[in-house]
Amino acid sequence: MSKKVVVALGGNAILTDDPTAEGQIQALRETSEKLVRLIQLGYELIITHGNGPQVGNLLLQQEAADSRSNPAMPLDTAVAMTQGSMGYWLQNTLGEAIRKSGLEKSIVTVLTQVVVSEDDPAFQNPTKPIGPFLSKEEAEKRAAKSGDSYIEDAGRGYRKVVPSPKPVAIVEADTIRTLADNDIITISAGGGGIPVVRRETRYEGVEAVIDKDFAAAKLAEIVKADYLLILTGVDHAFINFNKPDQEELEHVSVDELKRYIAEKQFATGSMLPKIEASISFVESVEGGKAFITSLDNVKAIVGSGPATVITK
Amino acid sequence: MSKKVVVALGGNAILTDDPTAEGQIQALRETSEKLVRLIQLGYELIITHGNGPQVGNLLLQQEAADSRSNPAMPLDTAVAMTQGSMGYWLQNTLGEAIRKSGLEKSIVTVLTQVVVSEDDPAFQNPTKPIGPFLSKEEAEKRAAKSGDSYIEDAGRGYRKVVPSPKPVAIVEADTIRTLADNDIITISAGGGGIPVVRRETRYEGVEAVIDKDFAAAKLAEIVKADYLLILTGVDHAFINFNKPDQEELEHVSVDELKRYIAEKQFATGSMLPKIEASISFVESVEGGKAFITSLDNVKAIVGSGPATVITK
Repeated sequence: MSKKVVVALGGNAILTDDPTAEGQIQALRETSEKLVRLIQLGYELIITHGNGPQVGNLLLQQEAADSRSNPAMPLDTAVAMTQGSMGYWLQNTLGEAIRKSGLEKSIVTVLTQVVVSEDDPAFQNPTKPIGPFLSKEEAEKRAAKSGDSYIEDAGRGYRKVVPSPKPVAIVEADTIRTLADNDIITISAGGGGIPVVRRETRYEGVEAVIDKDFAAAKLAEIVKADYLLILTGVDHAFINFNKPDQEELEHVSVDELKRYIAEKQFATGSMLPKIEASISFVESVEGGKAFITSLDNVKAIVGSGPATVITK
Repeated sequence: MSKKVVVALGGNAILTDDPTAEGQIQALRETSEKLVRLIQLGYELIITHGNGPQVGNLLLQQEAADSRSNPAMPLDTAVAMTQGSMGYWLQNTLGEAIRKSGLEKSIVTVLTQVVVSEDDPAFQNPTKPIGPFLSKEEAEKRAAKSGDSYIEDAGRGYRKVVPSPKPVAIVEADTIRTLADNDIITISAGGGGIPVVRRETRYEGVEAVIDKDFAAAKLAEIVKADYLLILTGVDHAFINFNKPDQEELEHVSVDELKRYIAEKQFATGSMLPKIEASISFVESVEGGKAFITSLDNVKAIVGSGPATVITK
């Protein structure tokens, strides 16, 4: 059986400076040509991706037309919609790259519901900004009406914030495993997955955003992946970042990383979740290795090229 | 091996009078409770569904916010987005109905690209209205700028029309077959599928709408289904519809139907594509049977309840 690699694509793999569908498809063509290298090496790919800018734009579009006859869709449904659009683009471009390389592989996008716990402390402390920038007055008016939380964001105005709970389980886990075992490349848990909570016999969508790196780690855990490959804008994680004694992390253990986390070496909402997701994966799957590197260095998993390599 | 049933859900199975996400989910809960009867009977389900009102609303939302930084997505991407949202709702509600009935089954939504031919005569004669209703002047201005076609629609204004080509193949056919063979319920080709044409190594999205009943027949062909079950607002197809000698069609052969089609017995864009899709299926799969009935009569496939039953 081929070794399984869960690949987590960051925003830069999809959205460049052209937000049109054609622009994003073009970016994914280039991304796909790099991902094919892993297929050529014989790995079974389980792919996931972020959706921040895309779901942000979709929420603005929904809001712009919001009316009784055409109501804005809630966040869980909007995430599902971006799983649709981005999954389509990626399965289309990756399919082309595979054909061009002379290989034959099936690819499928799996709409993915990711279970979170209602007891997750994130629900008491929403931190993830979504939707339009508002004036202070408008934000206060909406907060009073809905009970939602709003914060001042990056000097650009006020935005609604939603919780970012940790993934607990993946509803479609069995199917994703079956597909991977049948040599079919999966694209799943896009945008961190559609967040749902279990209530009696029902999974109910909730207004939350699951970090895509944590969702990737959960995916890697459920398929018992050999490798988790987190692709981002840099070749390595760093300690003492942007200081004179800045240092690239090459091979690191979980214990070292936990010490660095305690020292607050990694930026919240940026490198920190990638490090924490890597730790979660290597602690949950015997022999698992996590890699943090850039899209140009996917061959780091066979030791070719720079990366931060995390082992237990 | 279980018998395979391709189920084509019409708009009334999803959208009632409440276009909110919650309203559509509630409609799908009721639909799912009826579909479970087929699972209880031991059938393997391959489900598809229309997306007319949903993609229509999405296009209006896209247009309302269209700008350089947040450009409207093209129709193929919008179809992918509705495959995402509607697939999510349906796999969620059907999952609940299955659990409530004490069964265990996995369900997956497969983002589906459906291949059409650039030589399809439909590309010379666009007929399917999409997007907003416009004034005559605005429609003429847009037509001159884009080369798109616009028609007067139902006395409510002018709308863009796009081609409705026939499905030729399904890009994800192998995957859908693998899933069905692994006893996993699939939801695929939503909205007739994302229309693509093959250009060298690439499948390119095109601005077109594939009729969901024809896509269902193609799905039924590729999985070699035993039955194609087209669910709509009526229990039967009729001849001499709304005339004194109106007659319900019960068991009919392809030859009889072809005669009725020649007599223009079936309404274009309504019963006619269901009849033509049924013919296409029973002619392509040895021993296949097609049923046209309402959601309340899914048990018609075991002879319980009214339906129009089509055999070769």
